[in-house]
Amino acid sequence: MPSYKAPLRDTQFILNEVINIDRYASLPGFSDATPDLVSAILEEGAKFVEEVTQPLNLSGDEQGCVRHPDGSVTTPTGFKAAYDQLVEAGWGGLAADPAYGGQGLPHVIANAFEEFMISANMAFTMYIGLTQGAIAAITAVGSEDQKSTFIPRMVAGSWSGTMNLTEPHCGTDLGLLRTRAEPHADGSFRITGTKIFISSGEHDLTENIIHLVLAKMPDSPDTVRGISLFIVPKFLVNADGSLGERNTVSCGSLEEKMGIHGNSTCVMNYDGATGYLIGERDKGMRAMFVMMNAARLGVGLQGLAQSEVSYQNAVAYAQDRLQGRSLTGPKNKAGQADPIIVHPDVRRMLMNAKAFNEGARALALWGALQVDLTHMAATEEERQEADDLIGLLTPVIKGYFTDKGYENATNAQQCLGGHGYIREWGLEQFVRDARIAMIYEGTNGIQALDLVGRKLASNGGRALRTYVGKIKSYIDTHRDTQGMGEFVQPLEAALDDLQKSTSWLMANAMTNADNAGAASMPYLYLMGLVSLGFMWAQIAEAALHGLAGGATDTNFYSNKLRTGRYFFSHMLPETAIHRIRIQAGSKTLMEMDAQAF
Amino acid sequence: MPSYKAPLRDTQFILNEVINIDRYASLPGFSDATPDLVSAILEEGAKFVEEVTQPLNLSGDEQGCVRHPDGSVTTPTGFKAAYDQLVEAGWGGLAADPAYGGQGLPHVIANAFEEFMISANMAFTMYIGLTQGAIAAITAVGSEDQKSTFIPRMVAGSWSGTMNLTEPHCGTDLGLLRTRAEPHADGSFRITGTKIFISSGEHDLTENIIHLVLAKMPDSPDTVRGISLFIVPKFLVNADGSLGERNTVSCGSLEEKMGIHGNSTCVMNYDGATGYLIGERDKGMRAMFVMMNAARLGVGLQGLAQSEVSYQNAVAYAQDRLQGRSLTGPKNKAGQADPIIVHPDVRRMLMNAKAFNEGARALALWGALQVDLTHMAATEEERQEADDLIGLLTPVIKGYFTDKGYENATNAQQCLGGHGYIREWGLEQFVRDARIAMIYEGTNGIQALDLVGRKLASNGGRALRTYVGKIKSYIDTHRDTQGMGEFVQPLEAALDDLQKSTSWLMANAMTNADNAGAASMPYLYLMGLVSLGFMWAQIAEAALHGLAGGATDTNFYSNKLRTGRYFFSHMLPETAIHRIRIQAGSKTLMEMDAQAF
Repeated sequence: MPSYKAPLRDTQFILNEVINIDRYASLPGFSDATPDLVSAILEEGAKFVEEVTQPLNLSGDEQGCVRHPDGSVTTPTGFKAAYDQLVEAGWGGLAADPAYGGQGLPHVIANAFEEFMISANMAFTMYIGLTQGAIAAITAVGSEDQKSTFIPRMVAGSWSGTMNLTEPHCGTDLGLLRTRAEPHADGSFRITGTKIFISSGEHDLTENIIHLVLAKMPDSPDTVRGISLFIVPKFLVNADGSLGERNTVSCGSLEEKMGIHGNSTCVMNYDGATGYLIGERDKGMRAMFVMMNAARLGVGLQGLAQSEVSYQNAVAYAQDRLQGRSLTGPKNKAGQADPIIVHPDVRRMLMNAKAFNEGARALALWGALQVDLTHMAATEEERQEADDLIGLLTPVIKGYFTDKGYENATNAQQCLGGHGYIREWGLEQFVRDARIAMIYEGTNGIQALDLVGRKLASNGGRALRTYVGKIKSYIDTHRDTQGMGEFVQPLEAALDDLQKSTSWLMANAMTNADNAGAASMPYLYLMGLVSLGFMWAQIAEAALHGLAGGATDTNFYSNKLRTGRYFFSHMLPETAIHRIRIQAGSKTLMEMDAQAF
Repeated sequence: MPSYKAPLRDTQFILNEVINIDRYASLPGFSDATPDLVSAILEEGAKFVEEVTQPLNLSGDEQGCVRHPDGSVTTPTGFKAAYDQLVEAGWGGLAADPAYGGQGLPHVIANAFEEFMISANMAFTMYIGLTQGAIAAITAVGSEDQKSTFIPRMVAGSWSGTMNLTEPHCGTDLGLLRTRAEPHADGSFRITGTKIFISSGEHDLTENIIHLVLAKMPDSPDTVRGISLFIVPKFLVNADGSLGERNTVSCGSLEEKMGIHGNSTCVMNYDGATGYLIGERDKGMRAMFVMMNAARLGVGLQGLAQSEVSYQNAVAYAQDRLQGRSLTGPKNKAGQADPIIVHPDVRRMLMNAKAFNEGARALALWGALQVDLTHMAATEEERQEADDLIGLLTPVIKGYFTDKGYENATNAQQCLGGHGYIREWGLEQFVRDARIAMIYEGTNGIQALDLVGRKLASNGGRALRTYVGKIKSYIDTHRDTQGMGEFVQPLEAALDDLQKSTSWLMANAMTNADNAGAASMPYLYLMGLVSLGFMWAQIAEAALHGLAGGATDTNFYSNKLRTGRYFFSHMLPETAIHRIRIQAGSKTLMEMDAQAF
C-alpha cells in the first residue's frame, strides 16, 4: 500500500528561511500568518490528508465514479465522508475572503496545503480545486448579487464549481464552440450544447454544483470575440438563497480515462438550461482566463505533488528491498543482499526527483507569494512587478512541473521494477494520474506558446527583463560570497543560455513565426531549469546560513547542499541542449509535406 | 478507434537498400529469401496483423484475461480464433529450424514481421514471443530427446512456453530464489515454490504450456551458482508424445497491471510439480541467458513497435483535427481552422518519433542480421564479430528503444490533447502497454549495468573497439562523399562524445565502481544515439543513392533526407549532455546517507 507524509519540514524551511514570508508581515493576511500559526495550520493539514484522504486514493482509483441511469453520479466509497470532514474543518476556505466566510490567509499558505492535498489524493482534491477557480472568476467579474449568492456557499463547500469550456470538436480553439445562449424575457438565458471533459461535472459531494459555461449569443460574432460566460447552477437558486427546481443540465456519461478515476469527468448536456450572464457580454474569454490562470498554477502543483508522493514511495521501497550488492562491496553485511538504494542508478532516479521537488516547491511558493503581492503589495510598482513575474512563470510552472512530475513518477515506478507495474503498490496510479496534468487547462505545448508568443512579448518584454534582472542581480551579489561560487557559477552559465536563446528568438521569430513555435517547448524547459537554478541558489544560501548560525539540525542543511550540488552538476547543464534545439530553428520541422508524415 | 498499417515500404527499403541482405545470399536461409519472396511474406504478414490481431487490441485491453475458480484462464474474446489462424498460417515458425517444422528463414525477416505483430497487438504477441524464448533455450541446452519432444509442437504453436524466474522477494538478484527442486527416483524432480509476473503463465490458446523454471536443488549452493533450469509441462507428456496427467502447477492469481491486459500475467504455484532438468545442473543461469538475450531483443522491438503505432495514430489525428491557425497564416483557408499538424510543436513531437522509428528499425534489423551471422557467417572471424556486436547492442536495443518507445507514445498521446487521455482513441493504451517494456527482462537500469559493467569490459573491450572501428571507418569513407558531409560531421562529434566518455570511464571506474554505476544510463543513451546516428548516415546514403539512380519514388527519398536532417540537428546533439553527466561522476549521488532521501 502506498503511503505519504507531508513534507512539513521542507515547506517550513522554504517559507521561513528561503522566501522569508515574515518580510511581508505588514500586509493584510500576512500579519496573522505568524510562523507558529502557519506551522500549526500545516501540521493539522498534514494530519488531515494523511489520515483522511490519502487512505482513499488507491481504493478511489480502483472503484472509480459510477453514473446511474437517472444521470446522478456516485463518488467512490469514503469520498463523501471525507469531503464533509474537510468542509467542517474549513480547509476549502483558507485563502478566501473573510467577507465571504473565508479565513483570509495568504495564498502562499493555501498553496502549501494544496500540495499536500494533491499528493494525498489528486482525484479527490480536484473537487475542491475547480471550485476555487470558479470562485476566482465570480470574484473577478460577477455582480455583487452573484457574489453574495454563490461565493459564501462555495467557500463553505456546500456548493462546488466547474469550468465548462471544451466541446467535442474544440478545446484549444474556443472560437469554434457551438454552445448557444438564447436570451430570455426575464434577463436570463437558455443554454444549449454539449461540453466534454468536465471535471467534477456531477457528483454526490455537495448540495449544488455551479457550472461556469462558455457559450455564444445568437447575434454575437461566431469567433472567440463572441463568447460570453454564464453561471448555470445544477439547482436554480431562489431569492432567499434556498434551492429551487432542478435545471436542465445533466451528465450524459462519464469519460473512460487513463487515470484520476476518483474524479467524475463528465459529458455535460445543456438542454435549454437556465443560465445567467456573468461579466460583460462577449468578454467571456477574459473571465475564463481568470479561472484558467488560477487553475494552471493548481495543475502545476499537481506535477510537483505527484512527483513528491511517488518519490516518497520509491524511496521507501529502495531502502527496504534487498537485491544484489553495492558495486563497492556489501553494505548490509549481515543480510543476503543490500537495499537497492546502494545502487547509483537507483539514486540517480531518486535524486532527479528530490532535487526537482525541493526546487519546484520553492518556486511554487515563491509564485504563490507573487499572487498575493499582485493584490496586496504596498506600491503599484511592486504589484505590477509581481503580476509580471507570475504571468511569465504561470506557463512555466504548469508546463515544466507537469512534464517533470510525470517523468519523476515514471522513474519512481521504475525503482520498484515489476512491482511498480501492478496496482497494489500504487506507483502505476501516480503515473496515470500525473499524465493528465500535462494535458488539461491547456496542453503543455499551449503553455509554451503562451510563454514564447505572449508573455515574452507583452509590454515590450518587460516581464522577462524584470525576471532576468532579478537573477543577474542575485548572481552579482553572491558571486564572491563564501561557499556560493559552486552554485552561482552554473546558474550564470544557464542564464547565459536563456539570454542567448532569447536573442536568437528576437532575431529569428519576426521573420518566421514558426521559429517561435519550434523553439517554444525547449524555451519553456530552459526557463524552468533556470528558475529552479535560481531557487536552488537561494536554498543553498539559506542552508549555508543555517549551518553558519549553529543550527542543531545540521544534517538537514548539509543534505540541502548535497542535493543542490547534484542539481547544478547533473540537471542544470541540460540548458545547453535546449539552446541548441532552439537555435536549430524550424526548417527541418516544417519543410516536409503534412501528408508525408 | 486506433488503426495501424505495417510500414512495409520502410522495412523493404532498409532490408534491400540500407543493410542490403542480398549480400548474404550465399548463406543458409538467405538463399531462399529473395526480395520478391520477402516482400510476399511481409505483405501477407501485414495483412494478417491489420485484419486479424489489430482489431482485437483495444477490446483485449478493455476485457482483459479472466481467471476462473478452477485456476483456468480465459483470454479476451477473439484471441483464441486469431491464435488458431496464426498457427494455421505458420506465422510462429518463420525462423525456426526446418528440422522441427520451421520455415528456416533468416531472423532478420522474422524480426521485421515481429515488429508488425507487436504494433498491432502487443499483449497477443507476447503469447508467441515467450514461446520463441523457450524454444531458444531448449535448442541451446536441451537433450535430443527434449528437443524432439517439445520443439516441434512449440514451433507449430500447439504448445506454448513461459519463463519462470521472478519470485516475490527477488527478480534481478536470482541468487536469492527459493523455489526448490527435489530429485525423484525416476530422474525427474519435484518442483515447489511460487513464481510471480509470469507472462502467458496460464491461458486457453494452446493444448499444453511448457514452463521453463529456475530452481535450486537441495544440495546445491544457495547462490546464483546453485540454480538449475527445469522443464515443467502443464500436462505431462507420455512416451508417445500424447498428453498425460495434469501436473501440479497452477495459476494462483492474475496480476492487476497498468497495461498489457490481454496477456495473462500469472502468479504460478508449483506444488511438487514434476520437472525435468534441462542443461547442466547448477548452470541454469547460462541457459536462462539464452532465453533472456532473445527476449531482450524482442522487448526492444516492443519499444519500437509501440512508438510506431502510437505515432501513426497521432499523425492521423494531427492531419484531421482542425484547431487554430498556423503561425504563418491560414493553410486551410476554406475551413474554420487548420489541421494541427501545421503547428511546429506538434511536428516536433511527431518528428522525434518518426526519426527514432526509422533509425531504430534499421538498427533492429541490422541487429537481427548479426544474430543470423553469429550462427551462419562463413568464417569464424565474422561469426565472432557478429556475436560481439549483438552482445554489445542487446542492452542498448532493449534499454534505449523501450525508454524512447514510452516517451514517443506519451508524446503521441499528447498530440490528441484530452482525447489522448480517454480509452476510445487507444493512445492511452499504447502508453500503458509500452511502460512494461522498460521493466521486464531486466529493468533498463540493469541493461545499462550490463552494458557498462560487462559488455564494455569483456575480452579487453573488443566489442566496443570493433563497433567504434566500424563507425569511424564509415565516417572516413564518406566524409568527402557528395552530400554526406551534413550527416557525417555530427556523427563524428557524437562519436567523439562516446569515446571521451569511454576514456573517462576507463580512468575513473577502476578506482570507484560507483562511477560506472552512475554513468551507466547516460552511457546507454549515448550509445543509443550514436547507433541511431550510424544508421541514419547509412539511410541518408541510401536515399542519396536512390535519388541519384533516378528512382521514380523521389518523395520517399527526399523525405528520408529531411527526417535525417532533423535527427542530426535536433536529436543527436543530446550526446553532449550525457557526456557531461557521465563526467560529473558519482560523488553527489552517493554521499548522502540512504536514510536522508
